Amino acid sequence: MSRRHRIAVIEGDGIGREVIPAARTVLDRAASACGFTLDWRDFDWSCETWKATGRMMPEDGIARLADHDAIFLGAVGYPGVPDHISLWGLLIPIRREFDQYVNLRPVRLLPGVPCPLANKQPGDIDFWVVRENVEGEYSQIGGRMFAGTEREFVEQTAIFTRAGTDRILRYAFDLARRLGRPHVTSATKSNGIFHSMPFWDERFAAIGAEYPEIRADQYHIDILAARFVMSPERFDVVVGSNLFGDILSDLGPGVTGTIAVAPSANLNPEKKFPSMFEPVHGSAPDIFGQRIANPVGAIWAGAMMLDHLGEAEAAALVLRAIETALGDPASPRTPDLGGTAKMDDLAAAITAAV
Amino acid sequence: MSRRHRIAVIEGDGIGREVIPAARTVLDRAASACGFTLDWRDFDWSCETWKATGRMMPEDGIARLADHDAIFLGAVGYPGVPDHISLWGLLIPIRREFDQYVNLRPVRLLPGVPCPLANKQPGDIDFWVVRENVEGEYSQIGGRMFAGTEREFVEQTAIFTRAGTDRILRYAFDLARRLGRPHVTSATKSNGIFHSMPFWDERFAAIGAEYPEIRADQYHIDILAARFVMSPERFDVVVGSNLFGDILSDLGPGVTGTIAVAPSANLNPEKKFPSMFEPVHGSAPDIFGQRIANPVGAIWAGAMMLDHLGEAEAAALVLRAIETALGDPASPRTPDLGGTAKMDDLAAAITAAV
Ligand SMILES: CC(C)[C@H](C(=O)O)[C@@H](O)C(=O)O
Ligand SMILES: CC(C)[C@H](C(=O)O)[C@@H](O)C(=O)O
Repeated sequence: MSRRHRIAVIEGDGIGREVIPAARTVLDRAASACGFTLDWRDFDWSCETWKATGRMMPEDGIARLADHDAIFLGAVGYPGVPDHISLWGLLIPIRREFDQYVNLRPVRLLPGVPCPLANKQPGDIDFWVVRENVEGEYSQIGGRMFAGTEREFVEQTAIFTRAGTDRILRYAFDLARRLGRPHVTSATKSNGIFHSMPFWDERFAAIGAEYPEIRADQYHIDILAARFVMSPERFDVVVGSNLFGDILSDLGPGVTGTIAVAPSANLNPEKKFPSMFEPVHGSAPDIFGQRIANPVGAIWAGAMMLDHLGEAEAAALVLRAIETALGDPASPRTPDLGGTAKMDDLAAAITAAV
Repeated sequence: MSRRHRIAVIEGDGIGREVIPAARTVLDRAASACGFTLDWRDFDWSCETWKATGRMMPEDGIARLADHDAIFLGAVGYPGVPDHISLWGLLIPIRREFDQYVNLRPVRLLPGVPCPLANKQPGDIDFWVVRENVEGEYSQIGGRMFAGTEREFVEQTAIFTRAGTDRILRYAFDLARRLGRPHVTSATKSNGIFHSMPFWDERFAAIGAEYPEIRADQYHIDILAARFVMSPERFDVVVGSNLFGDILSDLGPGVTGTIAVAPSANLNPEKKFPSMFEPVHGSAPDIFGQRIANPVGAIWAGAMMLDHLGEAEAAALVLRAIETALGDPASPRTPDLGGTAKMDDLAAAITAAV
């Protein structure tokens, strides 16, 4: 009997509804080439759902997703729907309820993608950002006093647990070891942020000591952001808190010109719960309907999903197909890559390359 | 009687002890050219002071600084001295006690400074980062529980007051108006950070409405960081919280290749208390003693100080001298600019250009 993976698909809003079907075609092709089946189950949850029902997903949404091997997400968010509804009603609960405590994003200069930095070639920049994905600065703890008066103020509390901090740091060191990359960099701000970041540094030192063959260094987030631009070649694995990782994992793709093509994996490494895979880009309502979105972010996210499902060969096949299509000057290119092609043409070129 | 400005000088540690004297020479030259006097008073406070006395500055340090028109700071920090001592014992109390609630930093592509971005010319990138400098994420509120056990966790609380938020936003819009720049961009993260950032956005909308001629827009900090790299031409004035402003005001200089030459002004705009001017770079113990530090950060900070003291003509003179010296291929260049010159030679070239 052939292998079968059950995938919950949430296309979501805007171009999520375009790029996810395009990516599915590519992934199905890779699956049949490698002898397994992707069993897609659609969950039509989006800002439309919220408008109709007052919820982004049904009350038992998490339970309905639980029984899958992975979740494949497009994007959520639409004009007129406040972010705290679209995100805290779907994206963030999925990350938390399924304990997807790792957000993993590659930063890689790809062939054929215009890079804003001077004098860089594909291969020069190639590292991973590991972001803590369920605690830290993203928290509902806090509140507002004296609302609507001159004395008004808000408090926002970040929470860093030892268990939560240690496991993300350990994931980063394990990743470096697994990939044979000799170096882990920690993002900190212990010179400015008084309680949380000195604690983060302590744990980084403690966990780092368990990996004597890996060089551990740290930078304050301000100078680290600058170094992403000034010397991106020097990184192997960069690990940061929920907020710092969020910033660095958009800045990294920005530096390589690949925001539109970057993927994001929300991982529960122990596979106790399904992990979730999504393109970094958002729902982009301004271009929705024109079918000119770049499908590579979703396709690359799909490749990370295949890898997580144990289908390393298929994952590599998809990644090579992306590189082949983007690297070929004769391939169709979407407007963000300087071309005039439609999404479907680029997706077809990648499917053909698989 | 000629104008006289009393300046408290804290050279601090490392290359602070080299670049500040160099900058003083330049500023004195500009002062005599413009008919005023800088009355420098040295405060020899540094990590050495801490080693000798257990304090970075004497107990009445703030009171002793109060009676000055400005403070000119080199850098503090030295290996073996924890940051929470060197910074929370001097830099941060000065910012707070003197209500220096604005941190202002130019992001400008200068002639002769190698830029990491492709295809940029001096003039292409020229904007200001306005950072809230006394509240927000930098706070001592919070703490640790179950220290040293598996259950250990830390809490870190950020505080945003309406008064503190409104005045920094208003400063940013006033600056745009004063400089004739049509556009203010706010750094937010209201899609991820639940209490503080939605409040920040509310206040940004409220204050922005007082400036109908200025276009107000906002980006989440993650995508904003990426845009600093992908499209830095589009900014005029960028305003952010203490942490976001900190990150953006190092990233901006990183993007223009000017970390070593960037200045930072800690302003009490009402001039109720002295403001403080410092280079962005730190004490750089690794190069201290070689006299190869770039003095431009300190000199440019000095120019901002002259401007704040009402000496706009002298400030412009110094800034032009910096541009002249850096723009002249025959000028001495320090190693960070790709040359082999000593700090003193570059400083002399700038003095001569004044
Ligand atoms: C040294 C550190 C506390 C400081 C800050 O974060 O404010 C520095 O990065 C700066 O920007 O002046
Ligand atoms: C949409 C937003 C809440 C989200 C985040 O900050 O986590 C996004 O920026 C991301 O990185 O996936």
